Amino acid sequence: MSNADLHRERQTATISSEDFAEWWAGGRVALRERRALEKLFLDNDGFADPQHIALMSHKELYEYTIAKACKFLNQLRAWHATKAEANDTTNTKQSAIAELYDFRMLLSGPLGTALFQQSFPLRLHFSMFLPALLGQSTKEQQREWLERAWRMDGIIGTYAQTELGHGTFIRGLETRADYNGQSEEFILNTPTLTAYKWWPGGLGHAANMVIIMAQLYIKGKHYGLHPFLVRIRNAETHLPEPGVDVGEIGPKMSLNGVNNGFLGLKDVRIPRRQMLMKNAQVLPNGRFVKGPEPLLTYGTMVFVRVIIIRDVSFGLLQAATIATRYSAVRRQSPIAPDQPEPQILDHTTQQAKLFPQIANGIFFRIAADVVWHMYQSVMKELEAGNRRNLPELHALSCCLKAVCSAEAERGVESLRKSCGGHGYLSSSNLPQIYGLTTAACTYEGENTVLLLQTARFLVKQYAEGLKRKVLPHSVTYLRNAARPKWDKVVELKTLVRLLELAATEHIRNTFEYLRKQRKIAKSEQVAANKTGIRLTQAATLHGRAFLARIAFEEVEKFCKELKPSLAAVLKQLVELFVLEFCLTSLSDILLAFQLNARQVDEMRTRYERLLADIRPNAVAVVDGFDFNDRVLGSTLGCYDGRVYERLMEEARKSTLNQEAVNKTFETHLKPLMQGKL
Amino acid sequence: MSNADLHRERQTATISSEDFAEWWAGGRVALRERRALEKLFLDNDGFADPQHIALMSHKELYEYTIAKACKFLNQLRAWHATKAEANDTTNTKQSAIAELYDFRMLLSGPLGTALFQQSFPLRLHFSMFLPALLGQSTKEQQREWLERAWRMDGIIGTYAQTELGHGTFIRGLETRADYNGQSEEFILNTPTLTAYKWWPGGLGHAANMVIIMAQLYIKGKHYGLHPFLVRIRNAETHLPEPGVDVGEIGPKMSLNGVNNGFLGLKDVRIPRRQMLMKNAQVLPNGRFVKGPEPLLTYGTMVFVRVIIIRDVSFGLLQAATIATRYSAVRRQSPIAPDQPEPQILDHTTQQAKLFPQIANGIFFRIAADVVWHMYQSVMKELEAGNRRNLPELHALSCCLKAVCSAEAERGVESLRKSCGGHGYLSSSNLPQIYGLTTAACTYEGENTVLLLQTARFLVKQYAEGLKRKVLPHSVTYLRNAARPKWDKVVELKTLVRLLELAATEHIRNTFEYLRKQRKIAKSEQVAANKTGIRLTQAATLHGRAFLARIAFEEVEKFCKELKPSLAAVLKQLVELFVLEFCLTSLSDILLAFQLNARQVDEMRTRYERLLADIRPNAVAVVDGFDFNDRVLGSTLGCYDGRVYERLMEEARKSTLNQEAVNKTFETHLKPLMQGKL
Repeated sequence: MSNADLHRERQTATISSEDFAEWWAGGRVALRERRALEKLFLDNDGFADPQHIALMSHKELYEYTIAKACKFLNQLRAWHATKAEANDTTNTKQSAIAELYDFRMLLSGPLGTALFQQSFPLRLHFSMFLPALLGQSTKEQQREWLERAWRMDGIIGTYAQTELGHGTFIRGLETRADYNGQSEEFILNTPTLTAYKWWPGGLGHAANMVIIMAQLYIKGKHYGLHPFLVRIRNAETHLPEPGVDVGEIGPKMSLNGVNNGFLGLKDVRIPRRQMLMKNAQVLPNGRFVKGPEPLLTYGTMVFVRVIIIRDVSFGLLQAATIATRYSAVRRQSPIAPDQPEPQILDHTTQQAKLFPQIANGIFFRIAADVVWHMYQSVMKELEAGNRRNLPELHALSCCLKAVCSAEAERGVESLRKSCGGHGYLSSSNLPQIYGLTTAACTYEGENTVLLLQTARFLVKQYAEGLKRKVLPHSVTYLRNAARPKWDKVVELKTLVRLLELAATEHIRNTFEYLRKQRKIAKSEQVAANKTGIRLTQAATLHGRAFLARIAFEEVEKFCKELKPSLAAVLKQLVELFVLEFCLTSLSDILLAFQLNARQVDEMRTRYERLLADIRPNAVAVVDGFDFNDRVLGSTLGCYDGRVYERLMEEARKSTLNQEAVNKTFETHLKPLMQGKL
Repeated sequence: MSNADLHRERQTATISSEDFAEWWAGGRVALRERRALEKLFLDNDGFADPQHIALMSHKELYEYTIAKACKFLNQLRAWHATKAEANDTTNTKQSAIAELYDFRMLLSGPLGTALFQQSFPLRLHFSMFLPALLGQSTKEQQREWLERAWRMDGIIGTYAQTELGHGTFIRGLETRADYNGQSEEFILNTPTLTAYKWWPGGLGHAANMVIIMAQLYIKGKHYGLHPFLVRIRNAETHLPEPGVDVGEIGPKMSLNGVNNGFLGLKDVRIPRRQMLMKNAQVLPNGRFVKGPEPLLTYGTMVFVRVIIIRDVSFGLLQAATIATRYSAVRRQSPIAPDQPEPQILDHTTQQAKLFPQIANGIFFRIAADVVWHMYQSVMKELEAGNRRNLPELHALSCCLKAVCSAEAERGVESLRKSCGGHGYLSSSNLPQIYGLTTAACTYEGENTVLLLQTARFLVKQYAEGLKRKVLPHSVTYLRNAARPKWDKVVELKTLVRLLELAATEHIRNTFEYLRKQRKIAKSEQVAANKTGIRLTQAATLHGRAFLARIAFEEVEKFCKELKPSLAAVLKQLVELFVLEFCLTSLSDILLAFQLNARQVDEMRTRYERLLADIRPNAVAVVDGFDFNDRVLGSTLGCYDGRVYERLMEEARKSTLNQEAVNKTFETHLKPLMQGKL
């Protein structure tokens, strides 16, 4: 039995969530395939958690996760093999990269999320170890390792770069590999405590081989950072190899299934052929041969950041779905005094917490799709030796990773709180989704560092613009001085222009300030540090303007193909998306473009009206993301809306509730009450 | 050995942190007393955690917490009794209320935090059950219960109001108490699933008596919400009493030591004298006698909210101390290319994450002190029958609870992320501090609801102002039309005025919009709902303006007594505090007061200069909060700055690291690698 309020919401929506789901999934076939795969695993009781993982101890969670992950990998590989065979007969055999890409997508995405809400250690083998092996080793090395690694034949791998004392600034890494010409070996060491590798997933107790980033030294001379393939645990006994000090780094805010580890090395020797030599070689005689510039490796960072934009959009939409359904079921605080308590979805303040986040999730993913296409075309250009568009792509991926993860983090947390106290319960899964989303703000390039990198690009482009040079596509607006006309009914493109003008003005201000600081300071870098706050703000405004522009353009395209009812809702959502940015960037807009109080009020009123317009379709839209209940993993967000029943059912499953009286009553509470403690 | 960088910071500071600590603690004597008490417990190895609580299972944590809490309470009561005896001989015997107040302060505050980073179930006995008993029962009931409850003689209590389906809107509560004149009993029931009590701390497995808020019915007629004292577990066996369905609600984002519970009642009978009858009575014959208006009960809500402002300030300063010390130790990303990696404390963007939060923590507590004094004088007025100042106090406490908890939550999270990946580790204690701080946004009045209540007061005052009536002190600015003069060196009081003007303009806009909506809508309430977003924004701006005004005025007073070096730092901090609000409210300031681009740039430049000015004393200031290392509970924030050593020591203590090979290697990983799974 579905909740009556939710049922009514679905009856009265003006759009079909199935239409939405097809569009969102990228077509009917893609939607059907995903559903079939999810069904295969999620309808299998063997993959249901007997107790909520939040009840487990840290060690229990690890052991439970390993057991489940092995079973999952086994079945997934069997399914994958069958599918590959079917493709074989239809002559659509994939390349190794495409196959790997497909497989790692299966491990993350909805299926991986549904099964492992705190992730799992073996994922790194496919998401980091294998891609690094594929991308950084020579053909010969690939022959030796790749097939074995793909089959996990004696190999469970991970990738180790970050150190206890060194993160985003990779030149500061201390781990070193000294070449010994006599034995034709590298000798690896973490010479200090801060040099210990720290964070790699699966490193603690699962992995037995690691690709380690280390500073290469030949006869005491430094040759930069390179990847080395090192066995850290014996394949038979799993005991650490001699000189290896390995373990896990302990519990975390979330992601406790990952088994993040530390690794110290003392004179660990590996043969010369275990330096991954695609991009640089050390010959037996100790000669260092530089390879072609590793532009494709550079591309990997872009790739990872696009994935992160998709991931945070995914988390944001999970949270938005949970909170929207809950808001349709929960009734509280009368609006009219003689009426019963309304669905909280009818409170304007609640709508303002929900709908902008739905819009954010949608348009972040759409932006990720656009950057993903840019990435693919830039990679093709690179292969043809053309690197012209790489800086723009790099800046964009840095900027959007930072802006989208920061907005998504705020969004998830606001959605969690919109569910009141119940959002604080582990059974709502919202604390967990928050933990995953906020992690994206600091990993794979800390957000502030990424914004500073973007800003350096922007300031440079602004200077180029002053010299009347042609600018890359995403920053041409810096040379566009046109002031938009403020019509009676403000057009969406005008609002997008306002954001571009605000970004331009802030970049101009930052450029001027930087120039002034340069005159005062001794160095370019000191001046940049003094300008740090403005630089990060400029990059954020650029990110918002870009996201708004992309959303505007993409919706124009989509709407040509979609049913009018669905197109109408998408138009409301894109307007809300852009208006939300305008209102949060209002001071910058006001400094760039004179708006009077009446015009600002028009924007606010329009924002409020949009919330009311979206209200009737809110549930239908989140239904359209087509999250399986297991993907949401939430007592508050299930499709049937049995919120209170599930909260109680889940509470009753708590380990503490399995006995009427806990043993500490006799040992402690009773003596305390009798004054006999 | 202390970290060399931290040592140098302390050497080069221009203020003495001991001076700061004395001022902050409220004098030399108070500081000495607090330190002595902390020493008594925290130097006692019996209170050290053998393993990090994040490693424990949910059930293990409960059992561990109960054992530790009983031991703590026992020793604390012994210490308290000795102290009371000493006071006795010096003729300073306290009232019951003052004694209880003192005792509950000991349970929270630094000592309680140090020992119970996720709180503990028995706290509710002292923080909710006893105060309710004291405040809502008659003299006769107090004689029967109070002394026994104070000694915990057969009684472990808690307080139950919130229900599964009902929170902030208490009139919606469903639990009912029907009076039976024959047996002179009340019969208590939770008639539906949503009527189950849900959330009370200690209710799950610790408490055996509960003060339950229930709708009173006499002969089927409803007489409003009243408190009833109900035994839910047998004092001897601890088994639930007949008709009682009790358990805990399961794991949460944090606060997992609290044992929050659920409670269902089916025809549970209690004698008539167990309705707490201070404010209303039911006579044996079933006659309902209304007492005096429970204004003092109303005051309790104000009291609780002032405590919350203090609590979130405390959490914010814990986090700021951890992050500031870490930023002095951590070195990363060169500023100048030929220099070693600097302390990250030297990055302007890092300073912008730390120093405004230090200022927030300081001035939130100072505001809480001011409102606390208001509270005490209003309570005195109430006892004398004068309720004139109650609405203002109520609005202020709602507003500040909401504004301070929201800012503190953002602040703690920003501080956590300023520590990069390490801030994600449980051993940093930052995830935990965040969990506690964010909880304050939804409990004891959800923030949006509180802001709406404040805004209603503000709009009313604005209307009164238009009628030229005298306004309460905290809103007199609404009638002050004076435009400040923008001097070459902008005075702090000018900045405070800008915030007041911004608040006034937003309240005016909201007032007008509300009037317009009233004409369109059928009811006052529907209009208020339509205006919801503006109302909450108006209340937030009012809160900021009030906080800025208070900070400005209080620092003026303090600076007269303090050493000039300390006064100078306080002046920098208050400027930063006010400027931060000005910059985050900039769009509202621009709409209220024409500032040109140069003036805005002056504000930004001044903000940046203040960060540089505060930099040399940052560590000395956080040292001045005088947090014991155990209170911070963080590998990143200890006084000695041994960050990396502690991170590694704590990691090595992980349960998983106690064995070289986990058993799942033989059972799962090895078979997987051999294709035999």
